[in-house]
Amino acid sequence: MKAAAVTAIELLSPSSALNSGSKNLNCFSSISQIYGSISTRKFNYRSAFNLNSKNSIGKVSSARISMSTSSSYKAEEARVPPAISLPTPPITKFKIALCQLLVTADKEKNIACARKAIEEAAEKGAQLVLLPEIWNSPYSNDCFPVYAEDIDAGNGASPSTAMLSELSQRLKITIVGGSIPERSGDRLYNTCCVFGTDGKIKGKHRKIHLFDIDIPGKMTFKESMTLTAGESPTIVDTEVGRIGIGICYDIRFQELAAIYAARGAHLLCYPGAFNMTTGPLHWELLQRARAADCQLYVATCSPARVNNAGYVAWGHSTLVGPFGEVLATTEHEEVTVVAEIDYSLIEQRRTYLPFQKQRRGDLYQLVDVRRLN
Amino acid sequence: MKAAAVTAIELLSPSSALNSGSKNLNCFSSISQIYGSISTRKFNYRSAFNLNSKNSIGKVSSARISMSTSSSYKAEEARVPPAISLPTPPITKFKIALCQLLVTADKEKNIACARKAIEEAAEKGAQLVLLPEIWNSPYSNDCFPVYAEDIDAGNGASPSTAMLSELSQRLKITIVGGSIPERSGDRLYNTCCVFGTDGKIKGKHRKIHLFDIDIPGKMTFKESMTLTAGESPTIVDTEVGRIGIGICYDIRFQELAAIYAARGAHLLCYPGAFNMTTGPLHWELLQRARAADCQLYVATCSPARVNNAGYVAWGHSTLVGPFGEVLATTEHEEVTVVAEIDYSLIEQRRTYLPFQKQRRGDLYQLVDVRRLN
Repeated sequence: MKAAAVTAIELLSPSSALNSGSKNLNCFSSISQIYGSISTRKFNYRSAFNLNSKNSIGKVSSARISMSTSSSYKAEEARVPPAISLPTPPITKFKIALCQLLVTADKEKNIACARKAIEEAAEKGAQLVLLPEIWNSPYSNDCFPVYAEDIDAGNGASPSTAMLSELSQRLKITIVGGSIPERSGDRLYNTCCVFGTDGKIKGKHRKIHLFDIDIPGKMTFKESMTLTAGESPTIVDTEVGRIGIGICYDIRFQELAAIYAARGAHLLCYPGAFNMTTGPLHWELLQRARAADCQLYVATCSPARVNNAGYVAWGHSTLVGPFGEVLATTEHEEVTVVAEIDYSLIEQRRTYLPFQKQRRGDLYQLVDVRRLN
Repeated sequence: MKAAAVTAIELLSPSSALNSGSKNLNCFSSISQIYGSISTRKFNYRSAFNLNSKNSIGKVSSARISMSTSSSYKAEEARVPPAISLPTPPITKFKIALCQLLVTADKEKNIACARKAIEEAAEKGAQLVLLPEIWNSPYSNDCFPVYAEDIDAGNGASPSTAMLSELSQRLKITIVGGSIPERSGDRLYNTCCVFGTDGKIKGKHRKIHLFDIDIPGKMTFKESMTLTAGESPTIVDTEVGRIGIGICYDIRFQELAAIYAARGAHLLCYPGAFNMTTGPLHWELLQRARAADCQLYVATCSPARVNNAGYVAWGHSTLVGPFGEVLATTEHEEVTVVAEIDYSLIEQRRTYLPFQKQRRGDLYQLVDVRRLN
């Protein structure tokens, strides 16, 4: 198995990727031809769901048997509305930093630590910095209300995001700001803000899938005791590409990753604090699965592990490439992982394994409800 | 990492599963309460897609903000039609055998080898036997037409399936018969037959997603040069549970696994011949991902590796449990893996991580087109 693994790594080398650039472009221009004329806003969902031809399904099915090309299976209808072709990113190659921060009960100290880690990451050339889930507060239902900040209020009501805004503008970097407990009216959310190089918030993701699990004797947690779930997926056009955001448990729902991919994401960022039970079971598996199935980059960032904490984080912040390959990772200590992203590999991988043309829209359709409406 | 992995394995022990049986039952009766009144045949897709209330989506969305429980997010609508609750299987624990056969150019010899392996598996107590993809023929577009059999014609037209039928009846076992090239009229398919303990074919799956890939210098194959893709998913009620079938490349499409899960599958069987490029990259990853995301068993069976063959199989036939954990696997030699399946773990895992209640039908919906129509 060792020898075979080397073969795989060899295959994944960026140098081979660059050699077939022209072919990649050809692939995407053809996808564009398929989808080009379809406006996503005006997409006819009746046609997609055969609502006008329900009684003729049997005939349609028989007719299809006489066609042998895969194009007769309506691959583009496997995503509703049809997938948007991958946009040309503003940058192809850049460095991402995953700041695996050690979180304490002292919020000011947490903010200072994050500041230092981001500044060091920028010094190392990172143009995108990703922080962990709940990095300004211990992870517990008791702490969420105490450490929560009113992000929308601004003016000192949110020192954590103020720091991120200041740094992103000063250092001219994009920051996917992990998450912090957010107070909005009488509700609390687990919220990730994305900052552009102008220091402005380009997107705000409230964790969609709350972490309510019960593995007896191992891990029981119920975020819904204190938190409210977010209302929508969040995908942001940044100076380092189109980024879909999920927070921790959101990664378990493949549908979210798939609708981000269909919206043209280059990269999915998941701040996440898996634990000592779910971490070894699923943390790497889920990242690799989302990346391989969606053929894009996946970056995760966990808090560092504090063994005597109420909730012990797994660590292992990781960057995964569009074949599902781990490009950079770490153990559980406080550390910043810096790694290179090369978006040209996305098109290459999709040329190699052209899922977009091979899905069976005649058999299954994934509906992005918000985009459809 | 080693120590942590041990923790994970400990967690997965069947003994702990049995201790919470009553809780599992509670979980599923509540799901049944949610779905109970909905006939899948008569499911109102207009309601599911808000077709009658399209103009009021904005209001609905605002209204939802005032509700904090996860039930307001219509988890059951994330599958269209809604998922069927897990049926009670006819058997809870049994042995499965994965016969990693060495395939030669001599069809009679291949059939004899398969016969021997199945008989030995039954002697070891296997009640379900899974064979590899294309086990009666070398895997090549040149061979498919030569080795193809007319399964429906019977009467000696298909010696490969005749053998499987005879054995399943005589040994009183279920056989998921890998796949063979099937001739039907002027078309060829890559086809898997499922045999019940009465020797009859209970289901016939024609590979839905043809293996057309092009990784330059590594692996190029185009099944669509000779084969036609199947027309529908195949899920079969057998004496060893409800089994969804996919063949090799079918495993890459998570939607197929998800619709099988929504149809109440206990186990997905994928005969598959990944190769020396895609094998180390994705074979185990995809199996584990499908099992973990769908929370069910996944079994795969590959041919053994023949290093001088035109297409070199990866091997590594594997059984994966409903947490995505590898329960049994092997290297690439000719061997039969025998392992135990315990369906009670499915309900347990779904109680621990209750995805069914946590999906966001208000944000994404996976449509099983055939079941909807």
